[in-house]
Amino acid sequence: MERHFDQELEDLKRELLKMGALVEGEIFESIEALKNLSPERASKVISEDKVIDELENEIDERCLDLLALRQPLAVDLRFITMSLKISTDLERIADLAVDIAQRVLELVGKPLLKPLIDIPKLTILTQQMVKEALDSFVNKDADLARKVILLDNEADRLRNLVQKELVEDYMSKDSSASPRAVPLLLIARHLERICDHATNIAEDVIYMVEARAVKHSRETKCITDD
Amino acid sequence: MERHFDQELEDLKRELLKMGALVEGEIFESIEALKNLSPERASKVISEDKVIDELENEIDERCLDLLALRQPLAVDLRFITMSLKISTDLERIADLAVDIAQRVLELVGKPLLKPLIDIPKLTILTQQMVKEALDSFVNKDADLARKVILLDNEADRLRNLVQKELVEDYMSKDSSASPRAVPLLLIARHLERICDHATNIAEDVIYMVEARAVKHSRETKCITDD
Repeated sequence: MERHFDQELEDLKRELLKMGALVEGEIFESIEALKNLSPERASKVISEDKVIDELENEIDERCLDLLALRQPLAVDLRFITMSLKISTDLERIADLAVDIAQRVLELVGKPLLKPLIDIPKLTILTQQMVKEALDSFVNKDADLARKVILLDNEADRLRNLVQKELVEDYMSKDSSASPRAVPLLLIARHLERICDHATNIAEDVIYMVEARAVKHSRETKCITDD
Repeated sequence: MERHFDQELEDLKRELLKMGALVEGEIFESIEALKNLSPERASKVISEDKVIDELENEIDERCLDLLALRQPLAVDLRFITMSLKISTDLERIADLAVDIAQRVLELVGKPLLKPLIDIPKLTILTQQMVKEALDSFVNKDADLARKVILLDNEADRLRNLVQKELVEDYMSKDSSASPRAVPLLLIARHLERICDHATNIAEDVIYMVEARAVKHSRETKCITDD
């Protein structure tokens, strides 16, 4: 019985990692779609979201079954309940990759504004934060999770820079820039929102490893949007 | 023991409803701040978010304790795990009320664009969806929850209308409109995102009542953003 339960926990972990890998792939593809203004790649991101939605439902079912049938305690209970929360965050990240892909479709065929320095920086940071959040989960590495949480301020800063540049240097000077600038402004927000979800995952990892809630302990969190 | 457990479930429900009432208050205040361009009301929304963050942590702890100590089954297990998910959605709704308040602070002192017909409509719909999602939870009313889910398409439609009007009728015609139009465009997105979370809550209520996952069963969901 014990060994069987260990195997079930291992299966749950593998399922979450599979979902994580798919979500990382969706982010990568949505960013490539943006770089190349590729409607094909953008459409692929949108159509593949369904697989991730189904995985979330499967993981939720698996967690609820484990809670009902195994009545786990302590670290196992925290692992299963945090898996429930992490699957929700992964699914929302995939939705945001779809949002990016939709903005790319709005941009296709329009001349791009000059390459915006901080959007590529934000895409790199976003991919790093999601990867490290997932790594911290696999390796039960609370230190790495803390590192991810600290990066969130940089994501906010880059998002604000992109927004400021788009409004002040483009939209306020040339009204014809708006239909091209608005999707880019929203993409910066979608990317930053992905970083928020990576932060949520990192917080859940710390709770799982240390049984200590760090969520909302950063008092500055709610005003970083300024 | 049984009676004590019932009492604990009742306490959990009461705690969630308290959180729900505070979150509804935050939405109301953020909308009033927008209507009156009131920096005082906007600041109040931002400062009160902390109370809601703390409530989420408390509810999560309570749920994990109940899972560990009571090892609940069937409907009780679904109630507790869905409470974990609902508290997350409520907390994100409060964060979005804070986002709206921050956009209001950006608008204060700037002359408003002409009153936008569809933003007030969207604020009314948003408040209705959150209220009915919470009512469906209190009364275990899956029919009402289904009604909330159906309203989500209308929220998407209104958000798109606001965005289209702002870009095509204002920003594309007058570059000086952008610094005032961008916060309004983002407010419409924040409101629609609140409706998404109300939809999540409604989906969780249906799962709780009927043990049937309806999440992601609407195949159009991922493309309503177009």
